[in-house]
Amino acid sequence: MRILVVGASGTIGKEIVKTLEPDHEIIRASRNGEDVQVDISSLDSIKKMYEQVGKIDAVVNAAGGAKFSKLTDMTPDIYNVGIESKLKGQVNLVLYGLNYMNDNGSFTLTTGIMMDDPIREGAAIAMANGGVKYFVKAAAIEMPRGIRINSVSPTIMEESWEALGDYFQGFKPAPAREAALLYKKSVLGLQTGKNYEMY
Amino acid sequence: MRILVVGASGTIGKEIVKTLEPDHEIIRASRNGEDVQVDISSLDSIKKMYEQVGKIDAVVNAAGGAKFSKLTDMTPDIYNVGIESKLKGQVNLVLYGLNYMNDNGSFTLTTGIMMDDPIREGAAIAMANGGVKYFVKAAAIEMPRGIRINSVSPTIMEESWEALGDYFQGFKPAPAREAALLYKKSVLGLQTGKNYEMY
Repeated sequence: MRILVVGASGTIGKEIVKTLEPDHEIIRASRNGEDVQVDISSLDSIKKMYEQVGKIDAVVNAAGGAKFSKLTDMTPDIYNVGIESKLKGQVNLVLYGLNYMNDNGSFTLTTGIMMDDPIREGAAIAMANGGVKYFVKAAAIEMPRGIRINSVSPTIMEESWEALGDYFQGFKPAPAREAALLYKKSVLGLQTGKNYEMY
Repeated sequence: MRILVVGASGTIGKEIVKTLEPDHEIIRASRNGEDVQVDISSLDSIKKMYEQVGKIDAVVNAAGGAKFSKLTDMTPDIYNVGIESKLKGQVNLVLYGLNYMNDNGSFTLTTGIMMDDPIREGAAIAMANGGVKYFVKAAAIEMPRGIRINSVSPTIMEESWEALGDYFQGFKPAPAREAALLYKKSVLGLQTGKNYEMY
């Protein structure tokens, strides 16, 4: 398979590449650009990436940001980071990737545990994740040519614990290589419309 | 209680008013303006509404649009209607309403059945609904001064069946006065962080 991994240089992205590269041709996309450069919060950047990459059998996305914020401090400027990047960015990867996707290919997006198990200052992130989860569920029934779509909802990663652990009091962090397994299951399995929860 | 009903002239809004007005002071807001005018897709309009209305004990929102679209025809212009109105509009009603909300008050927002039971051309709407559902769930744990927040997820209404029934093949429509009960439960009950599903 020819698989485009977006966010390939991130904590989870690197492990997705490691898990898939022994058996597949991997194209690594990220903001710094490994094989190809992309900023998923820009639709033009997404379009350019697909033009460079051409036909693929799967797109796996582990990129997309959103901001922590106290509810009482939250403004549109804060929640828009997640809306533009994690929500619209991932939806655009699907809408504008469909023409490059081979029959029976798949999209795998990323949500996150904090929508199901809320934490302090997490509402703007949960909001973006929820949009992605339900876009995936609804889009799955309209996908053409046997194309599938799922999302993966990772828990907090061991590799991110030092930076983010304070937000996730009482959570059990997991290694990113275990999150990578769920992306592999989505790409190589046959399920669709699913949010694979790592918890 | 002093209750602001936004979208008060709509199918469900009218029934919410009917259910609550025997026992409460109702302020009806809508685009046409009954007691007060508001377009929830405009933050300025929301701010102006709250300035006019002043302190309240509950905000119930039944306004907010989103567009039907085939997945393969969908563009940012289409899904942005739901993002700006149903998603950001409802979130802004909460963020900018907090200063006007009395202690132990409540916000009740609206999602919809199509996120849980997907229909054709429904992905852009499901996406907006999903954002609202998870914002509510996460925001609930950070609400100050005993303020609660819930959403109601109505099924297709009998009153909308002629216009929208084709999208909802095999669904059982329900009368809007039954949907209004769930909003009443949210306002007068004590639960928080809940998406009341009318199905």
